[in-house]
Amino acid sequence: MNKMRKIQGGVCAAEGFVAGATGCGIKTGTVTRDDLAIIFSQGATTATATFTTNKVKAAPVRISAEHLRTGRIRAVVLNSGNANACTGPSGMADARAMAAATARSLGLKTSQILVCSTGRIGVPMPMPAILKGIPAVKLTRSGSQKAAKAIMTSDTFAKEFSLEVTTHDGKFRIGGIAKGAGMIDPNMATMLCVVTTDAIIPAGPLRKVLRDSVEDSFNRITIDGDMSTNDTVILLANGASGISPSPAIFRSALDEVTRALARMIVKDGEGVSRFVEVEVRRAASKADARRAAEAIANSTLVKCAWAGGDPNWGRILDAVGYSGARIQESSADIFYDALPVAVNGVVSKTPVRKLRQIAARKSFRVTVDLKLGKASHVVWTTDLTEEYVRLNLGE
Amino acid sequence: MNKMRKIQGGVCAAEGFVAGATGCGIKTGTVTRDDLAIIFSQGATTATATFTTNKVKAAPVRISAEHLRTGRIRAVVLNSGNANACTGPSGMADARAMAAATARSLGLKTSQILVCSTGRIGVPMPMPAILKGIPAVKLTRSGSQKAAKAIMTSDTFAKEFSLEVTTHDGKFRIGGIAKGAGMIDPNMATMLCVVTTDAIIPAGPLRKVLRDSVEDSFNRITIDGDMSTNDTVILLANGASGISPSPAIFRSALDEVTRALARMIVKDGEGVSRFVEVEVRRAASKADARRAAEAIANSTLVKCAWAGGDPNWGRILDAVGYSGARIQESSADIFYDALPVAVNGVVSKTPVRKLRQIAARKSFRVTVDLKLGKASHVVWTTDLTEEYVRLNLGE
Repeated sequence: MNKMRKIQGGVCAAEGFVAGATGCGIKTGTVTRDDLAIIFSQGATTATATFTTNKVKAAPVRISAEHLRTGRIRAVVLNSGNANACTGPSGMADARAMAAATARSLGLKTSQILVCSTGRIGVPMPMPAILKGIPAVKLTRSGSQKAAKAIMTSDTFAKEFSLEVTTHDGKFRIGGIAKGAGMIDPNMATMLCVVTTDAIIPAGPLRKVLRDSVEDSFNRITIDGDMSTNDTVILLANGASGISPSPAIFRSALDEVTRALARMIVKDGEGVSRFVEVEVRRAASKADARRAAEAIANSTLVKCAWAGGDPNWGRILDAVGYSGARIQESSADIFYDALPVAVNGVVSKTPVRKLRQIAARKSFRVTVDLKLGKASHVVWTTDLTEEYVRLNLGE
Repeated sequence: MNKMRKIQGGVCAAEGFVAGATGCGIKTGTVTRDDLAIIFSQGATTATATFTTNKVKAAPVRISAEHLRTGRIRAVVLNSGNANACTGPSGMADARAMAAATARSLGLKTSQILVCSTGRIGVPMPMPAILKGIPAVKLTRSGSQKAAKAIMTSDTFAKEFSLEVTTHDGKFRIGGIAKGAGMIDPNMATMLCVVTTDAIIPAGPLRKVLRDSVEDSFNRITIDGDMSTNDTVILLANGASGISPSPAIFRSALDEVTRALARMIVKDGEGVSRFVEVEVRRAASKADARRAAEAIANSTLVKCAWAGGDPNWGRILDAVGYSGARIQESSADIFYDALPVAVNGVVSKTPVRKLRQIAARKSFRVTVDLKLGKASHVVWTTDLTEEYVRLNLGE
């Protein structure tokens, strides 16, 4: 049998990957923390990525998409503090210059570099500082955490996760880093994520497996319903392990990594006090299940109730009602964890005290059973707190 | 020429309408305020209404829709404190009993009464108190304000507006009351509104004119993106003036009333500190203009920025980007009042200080010019404050 074991190393857990970071003072002009990271594969890779579906795409997203089509990717350069979004033609030139400087520093071609930026929108990149910083990054086998920290914005902890997978042919490794925090919505979050593996995966299957895995992880999380201009998930496979896992084995390992990082992003959402798994089940269709789950997860009123530890089910049913999903009010049940709060569309006999205990926890599950069909959908979300508003009053 | 003059009287401004209210202690069991109102036409009316499009509809919405189809409407009974929503078959019986008691008290048939409820969801109606209250309501020509106050929930002021319209044939009057405050979204708000007129309007035109007017008023407002189970706008015309205005004249008078009441609802949104008119213009299609305007108005991040007096345009462009509307980033302009904050997708030369002054005002306008077509759409919305979250932590 195949075994998966959690290991240290993050984006450098896989053989042949090194990472590092440095401080450029990108946001404030003063160097107070690392804000520029590089991840480098010592050998050739197959590479793929999924990007934001926002029609307003940041310059680094456009440049990375271009390089993915034409180049043999070897490295990713990432920065926090400035998203290089809504920056026009000069923003495009800046993203290209970041790639070119990284290529020079590593002895590669510009088209072999992917670029990710996160931070403020609409502000020009401080290019002199960035171009000075790039050659100063020291790449090491233990550089993952430094890189994970450098890409944090309002994140409160660095996000890394890695696995060693034992197959009957031998072992391969997979791991990644991510950042999240604000502007988090399915399709995708304001988030950056780089996953590396030393498994051998051809380009075609790599593309498909990443798309599917993102669908079941990062596209299921929502904090505030806002979708960013910069969202990027990159997957690099350098084959250094010599192992060619079956598509199913690789998929399950990748899912472990993407889902772990996605959950970390939700738990670290701005001002979050609850992590809520919302499941809509027995919906009439897959699309209905998704619509209903996302309407609940994005409802301002539902999220405010959770912040107050209030197991308010009327607001949940109300959200399902306007989601566009088919619903028969008289057959809908709603649960907090295992306890029914509403049965067949009316209040249950569960003591409110017990429901309040659940809704006041740091983590709980809300299940809506529509009893109309067989489709289900799960999203991971949070409450909406006064702290969230305070953090987003402006920059 | 026709002249419109603002007059006192609200829902009793039109000849032949009386109103009143009483206290039943619906929310708490103790009578501390009026919470039950009746509006009555002394003569026959033509009547129409628009209801929430939420698939979860409160019992009074279902009963009122039924009575509208079959009855010759003469009165409306309204209560605050309990929405009679998600209350199952017993909720339907309760709404019917409210109509029956009102009919008995006024010497009418049950099918001649419309019912509106607003307040908590999922809690049974305290029927003994309500049935005792209904015959205690004293109906007078000056009862509009008392009725407007009785239907308030978290509203901070009573909402009334009325007009006298002079046509070449003579004068007619039109006026209404409304309540709003939370769960406000287009299609429609958590809001109740009753408009009365003494103009002569046949049933067919009445239906059409209300639908159109609601589309351009209540369906353009959004506070929190949540659509309630109880939204109702009722229009009663009793013809007591003897005047048959042209459709155009009546439409413009009705629009004045519905738009005035809609703006009051937005200004009185829970925890609101800014009233923002969002216009998207030169969109590729009407649907695009609407999508983009609503995405801006419902963006948690945009609304938080406004609460902080931050003229953040990156978040606005981001919201347009994910709205589904066509956008060419390099041709989009964004304005705060008359001042450009972004021109052709990049930051303008307007001093940030001046933009901040506008974004810190109690009322301002945000315009997004997409330069792709001829369609435009306006919505009225608010910021999202810590106070809003505090008010919605639970009941």
